[in-house]
Amino acid sequence: MGVIDHRDGLEVLDRDECLELLAAGSGGVGRIAIIEGLHPVILPVNYAMDGDRVAFRTSAGTKLDAALRDALVAFEIDHLDDDDRIGWSVVVRGRSEAVTDERVRDRLETLGVRPWSDVEKSSWVTVAPETVTGRRIPPHT
Amino acid sequence: MGVIDHRDGLEVLDRDECLELLAAGSGGVGRIAIIEGLHPVILPVNYAMDGDRVAFRTSAGTKLDAALRDALVAFEIDHLDDDDRIGWSVVVRGRSEAVTDERVRDRLETLGVRPWSDVEKSSWVTVAPETVTGRRIPPHT
Repeated sequence: MGVIDHRDGLEVLDRDECLELLAAGSGGVGRIAIIEGLHPVILPVNYAMDGDRVAFRTSAGTKLDAALRDALVAFEIDHLDDDDRIGWSVVVRGRSEAVTDERVRDRLETLGVRPWSDVEKSSWVTVAPETVTGRRIPPHT
Repeated sequence: MGVIDHRDGLEVLDRDECLELLAAGSGGVGRIAIIEGLHPVILPVNYAMDGDRVAFRTSAGTKLDAALRDALVAFEIDHLDDDDRIGWSVVVRGRSEAVTDERVRDRLETLGVRPWSDVEKSSWVTVAPETVTGRRIPPHT
């Protein structure tokens, strides 16, 4: 077991463990937090890892799409099982970037990220991680 | 089926539907977004509804605990099934408030919100909703 943060009793995951969990969940669901005005907002997204970048679709023309051009964001994945009291979470913090390069867009289209709705018009957004942090609930004593 | 948002193709849930979903998930897991410096952060929390307020525990003395005194936050729950392409999400936006009233704290302790780790020292935080919004993925045509 790794280092325990004695303030909250949770095991600290190192960057490599976090990136492994992000890669393993690629194609699945995560949540993105952005700041709209002075308020944080959270939205679920399907994501994939493109190298060490988080990539996801937005609907072109929406407020979200506009908000994700060069913004400070957080992206989170977790697996939490309340019955078994096990779980972990990983948070990526970085700057979001609208994908404009056709070659990058073509590559992202191969990563298995399906849009949630039929009408969704795909813009792609990536987040280059500045920090990657994670916590795991240690086995109970 | 309710109103469809034609920008993203998702069904708009009204406030009552959102509050029903929040009540049904009470005792389970949601995610809280706060702003730390200029950066949003997301953390999973066990929550319960106390009337129309979202209530959850934090570890006393942590940065999170300090950040949750009178802050603008977002709280999100979702149920997303990637295989079946069904799902919904609900977002509460409001101001967080550290619970200092002993009677409120005693009531919150009865709501079935278990701490995630053995060492967690409970502070309680509540969020009074300013807005409650939700989206559902409509059946595919």
